[in-house]
Amino acid sequence: MFGAPRPTGRRLPAGDFTLLAPCTPGKIVALWNNFHALAAKIGKAAPAHPLFFIKSATSAIGPLEPIRRPPGYAGKIVFEGELGIVIGKSAKEVAPNRAGDHIFGYTCVNDVTAIDLLFENGDFPQWGRSKSFDTFGCLGPVIATDFNSATAAVITRLDGVERQNYALSDMIFSPAELVSRISHDLSLLPGDVIACGTSLGVGSIKDGVTVDVSIEGIGSLRNRLAG
Amino acid sequence: MFGAPRPTGRRLPAGDFTLLAPCTPGKIVALWNNFHALAAKIGKAAPAHPLFFIKSATSAIGPLEPIRRPPGYAGKIVFEGELGIVIGKSAKEVAPNRAGDHIFGYTCVNDVTAIDLLFENGDFPQWGRSKSFDTFGCLGPVIATDFNSATAAVITRLDGVERQNYALSDMIFSPAELVSRISHDLSLLPGDVIACGTSLGVGSIKDGVTVDVSIEGIGSLRNRLAG
Repeated sequence: MFGAPRPTGRRLPAGDFTLLAPCTPGKIVALWNNFHALAAKIGKAAPAHPLFFIKSATSAIGPLEPIRRPPGYAGKIVFEGELGIVIGKSAKEVAPNRAGDHIFGYTCVNDVTAIDLLFENGDFPQWGRSKSFDTFGCLGPVIATDFNSATAAVITRLDGVERQNYALSDMIFSPAELVSRISHDLSLLPGDVIACGTSLGVGSIKDGVTVDVSIEGIGSLRNRLAG
Repeated sequence: MFGAPRPTGRRLPAGDFTLLAPCTPGKIVALWNNFHALAAKIGKAAPAHPLFFIKSATSAIGPLEPIRRPPGYAGKIVFEGELGIVIGKSAKEVAPNRAGDHIFGYTCVNDVTAIDLLFENGDFPQWGRSKSFDTFGCLGPVIATDFNSATAAVITRLDGVERQNYALSDMIFSPAELVSRISHDLSLLPGDVIACGTSLGVGSIKDGVTVDVSIEGIGSLRNRLAG
């Protein structure tokens, strides 16, 4: 799929198909504190290097698949609408001006978190665990290969009510910078997703509520918390 | 490989083959604070649930492959000799008394860390990044399918000098407990590795030094920090 894809020209009527997650990541590299507006709100300095955690790829689901409440967890579940970079070509120690060659395209991400677990243990923040539950990595609806993040916004709605609306131009590390710098830390492989971090407006999802992450030029990713 | 493997009976003379990493994990789930002796030394309570981070599978190397110093990183690099559980059968919400059915076997792990990065940013501990550099996940030399962790010890040597020697019976969460509890958090897939955490004696590796992690019943995993 990442080699030299070409449109087939074939069109299917809506309703005749089900969209799966648009790629099968080996890993999801997810950013923390990557937007100036959110950094200012929480009173944190812009980091000198991308701050990330690894979110298990087994968390990935596609559009319209339900987000499942973890067994035995009655706490808050938080949405984060984000831009996702999909890697198309293996990247290791790539220069920023070559990063575009390694990007296949872009997708919408809902980086879901069982937030009450994150700081439940005072000795060890559980970034990996609280964000890696099965179904907590919503991806889709498609991978847009011709997309310019400099002019787009991420809009997140809960049951149709807007909760996030932020410009991607406010990113601290741009997609090219992210791919370059992260590829100096660890090898990125085709299908891997970098979730670029979120900005203002994050909040919790009540059971039964539908989250819709929309980015103009990509589409709208919709998932319901099944509870 | 994880279906119904059988010995072929074929024997190869030493020197006629090169051992690779004994599996290709989808993810490495790595434990923090899982030994009573180390918890006591650092003054931390035993956790109520396994504390883990996700270590990128692209960090995996096999026996005798060099550990590489990250580009531009001049700081300390730390070894951690550990037991690794290799998953053989997909595990989701598995009961402790069924966990054994999902374990293919056991291997040695050196969970390498660029320790100066871990707390470099005061707002966000970088567990994922500091431990996910390519070559920082040493695995091998083999997967032992008939191994009892209750009676074995992990011995780590630097250039032949013993630095760690701890009993696996001192684990806070046993392998069966780890597989069960983690499988309630996220799906484990065949080839995935759970690194069970380390105990007393961790320290840094000077450039050029060889680290040897040995567990009786599994073998000896040797890797040199190439610098």
